[in-house]
Amino acid sequence: MRIVVVGGGFAGLNFIKSLWAEKDVEIILVDRNNYHFFPPLLYQVSTSFIEASNISHPFRRMFGPQRNVRFHMGTLLEIFPEKNEILTDGGTYAYDMLVLAPGTETNFFGMKNVEEKAWPMKTIDEAQELRNHILLNLERASREKDPKRRERLLNIVISGGGPTGVELAGMLAELGRHIAPREYPDIPDIQKARIYLVDAGKVLLAPMSPKAQEEAYKVLSHLGVQIILNKAVKDYADGVVLLADGSTLETETLIWASGVIAREVPGLPKDVIGRGRRIQVDAFNKVSGMQNVYAIGDACLQTTDPAFPNGHPQVAQVALQQGTLLARNIKRSLRNEPLKPFVYNDKGSMAIISKYKAVADLPKFSFEGFFAWLVWLFIHILPLVGFRNKVQLAFSWMWSFITNNPTLRLILRPLPSQRALDDARKQLQRPDVPVSEPTSRPDAKPVVG
Amino acid sequence: MRIVVVGGGFAGLNFIKSLWAEKDVEIILVDRNNYHFFPPLLYQVSTSFIEASNISHPFRRMFGPQRNVRFHMGTLLEIFPEKNEILTDGGTYAYDMLVLAPGTETNFFGMKNVEEKAWPMKTIDEAQELRNHILLNLERASREKDPKRRERLLNIVISGGGPTGVELAGMLAELGRHIAPREYPDIPDIQKARIYLVDAGKVLLAPMSPKAQEEAYKVLSHLGVQIILNKAVKDYADGVVLLADGSTLETETLIWASGVIAREVPGLPKDVIGRGRRIQVDAFNKVSGMQNVYAIGDACLQTTDPAFPNGHPQVAQVALQQGTLLARNIKRSLRNEPLKPFVYNDKGSMAIISKYKAVADLPKFSFEGFFAWLVWLFIHILPLVGFRNKVQLAFSWMWSFITNNPTLRLILRPLPSQRALDDARKQLQRPDVPVSEPTSRPDAKPVVG
Repeated sequence: MRIVVVGGGFAGLNFIKSLWAEKDVEIILVDRNNYHFFPPLLYQVSTSFIEASNISHPFRRMFGPQRNVRFHMGTLLEIFPEKNEILTDGGTYAYDMLVLAPGTETNFFGMKNVEEKAWPMKTIDEAQELRNHILLNLERASREKDPKRRERLLNIVISGGGPTGVELAGMLAELGRHIAPREYPDIPDIQKARIYLVDAGKVLLAPMSPKAQEEAYKVLSHLGVQIILNKAVKDYADGVVLLADGSTLETETLIWASGVIAREVPGLPKDVIGRGRRIQVDAFNKVSGMQNVYAIGDACLQTTDPAFPNGHPQVAQVALQQGTLLARNIKRSLRNEPLKPFVYNDKGSMAIISKYKAVADLPKFSFEGFFAWLVWLFIHILPLVGFRNKVQLAFSWMWSFITNNPTLRLILRPLPSQRALDDARKQLQRPDVPVSEPTSRPDAKPVVG
Repeated sequence: MRIVVVGGGFAGLNFIKSLWAEKDVEIILVDRNNYHFFPPLLYQVSTSFIEASNISHPFRRMFGPQRNVRFHMGTLLEIFPEKNEILTDGGTYAYDMLVLAPGTETNFFGMKNVEEKAWPMKTIDEAQELRNHILLNLERASREKDPKRRERLLNIVISGGGPTGVELAGMLAELGRHIAPREYPDIPDIQKARIYLVDAGKVLLAPMSPKAQEEAYKVLSHLGVQIILNKAVKDYADGVVLLADGSTLETETLIWASGVIAREVPGLPKDVIGRGRRIQVDAFNKVSGMQNVYAIGDACLQTTDPAFPNGHPQVAQVALQQGTLLARNIKRSLRNEPLKPFVYNDKGSMAIISKYKAVADLPKFSFEGFFAWLVWLFIHILPLVGFRNKVQLAFSWMWSFITNNPTLRLILRPLPSQRALDDARKQLQRPDVPVSEPTSRPDAKPVVG
């Protein structure tokens, strides 16, 4: 039996790992990237705290010894359920069983300007691009003579008060406080730079406990983050963010962490697509009305779990558990044993809110502060695939926290072409380009020799 | 006095570090990147052994505590010696003294096809791009049905038998031998992949001792590298490398490590430009005929050193020593002490040729093998800026050598846009796209549930 899995995130990868011991099953994973990555730590990549490679692991390295698992790098273009085939940009694959685990993408809620100009943060590439953008803006600010334009380069607006927004705000505030003044002495008013955290709702970390919400608010405020609640971002053009009440914020950096929508799976019948573009599935994660197509993780909508009549939250734990259960049910089916429906076991949720502080909601109680932060570190290192990643991540963290100064602030990007430079040269050789004055006037006498 | 330094490589950075204790001197570094990097290890970035961040360090982090050193990110566009100003894509800077340390760029010897299609390896970006290209070609090969095209995707031709070419060939051969067969079981004839090392000269590692040359030849041959000497690459089109004698090699990957040429400095008088576009300087590294413009490192040509009447080799040691001497001469000049002319102290040269083997030429004797490799490791970790880089690099190496399997084979690059995917979907939905057959025919019966 050949099972094609689309997407190697938490759901897809856990499904494969739980099933690969079953030697009669042939598994093909299709993913756009050649690596699995750990989204909860993306915000640390975009703030130069850790390397992308600390939270990524190549699929082929994981699958190496498993001869019944194959990897195909490619992006899903369409599925053809009637032919039992899928089309990717790398070719067509036939399947006996199809498992859809495509995850979600950033939801811009139809705002074209925001989609074009804001910085999403759902993928490794996006996190790296955001890192480059923030660092480049600091360089631009160091050369900018106009205080107004300089402020706009330095300000950062984060839309979305969920874990990603809160964690980003805390990290950026720490950077702004400890590192920026030391390393950018040529930006005169760097203390005026502001981090704004904007959310349409009444609280930060909406799905968490009131205790966690209050703690996040308190700690971020203390770090100097400007928290703006009850106001949705409505537009973003020419460096100005427009909020729902008509007020505005000026920034060259709007980070969009406001919402997600399931990735589209072209070829699925329209009537199985529910809220948030999620794919309606039964208690065994089979897509409604289909015979051999399944969906797991953030992209599916399962309303059969008594405690979650409106579907599960789109979090890693649900994805991991659904992946495992579907694999086990396939094994049961192969042994003619009865199948088990999915019931989510909520182990709690956490968010890190500053350098040594986190908030945690466990099923029985909530706690916060340094101990929560330690627990957070622990549970974030454990699930990381690969011993090397664990060790290097632990090292990166230790280093960053001990020195208060991570060293990863590298702007890695293709350099401009010679033609672009020639154009720049022509354009800049106008008489109105300001000249930075030397401290002493040049006297053209030899300094040495 | 304001000194503007163009280029933060070995020469420029060492100049700055040797001078920054001099509080009356204001130093501005202009560099295209916001980081210094260590070129001798680029080949390990392009072969997935280490991270770019292991060999890079942000300038601002280094300069942080030095209030008389400033950093400006920008690319030099032109110098105006008569005005004592330089123009970069970030603006204009006036100077009392100008130190040019722009280094070299890849020399394609006017071959347009090679320049367009071959992979140079002089910068961090290029090394990362090459890594992506090699990994993507392996993915393409895993989907390619035509054995001829597959071979072309797998073959790699390296032009240039200097240290970079030799080190790359050794590393790629190790990867091809140990990792590719384990992780790419879906490429049937991966053993047929060939690494070709081509050079126009009679020997590998031309500037080293005959003993080192022979050892490199022996070890690489043993690793399966196809060494082709006495043949220059003449052209590269449609996946075919044309050699001087009319013979051809088929590959989608031609790596160009054949030569360098000093970076152009527009605005310099034509008559100071010598062989290899290098800038003619006197014994104190002052540009010929100029009053307050100096050149150090690979980009300068100094023929006053008795042992090197045709100029020094373009190696790190010369650059480091010239940077230090120029800084010291400025200090001497400020104290009205006599200046010292530059005399190169050759400490020897080394190259790593396989996993545990290197060759070393010291002034008094040559040696090779495991001990040379240990020495090589040692001298490559020491000059790396930053304690963190040292520790992480040591860890990366240890890990790679112990496990025989580094985990960095990540293809990090921007993903295709939705429009590109839609186009691909339209194009691929033709009836002639081959369908990969499942092991069992789909029967559309439910697998689970």
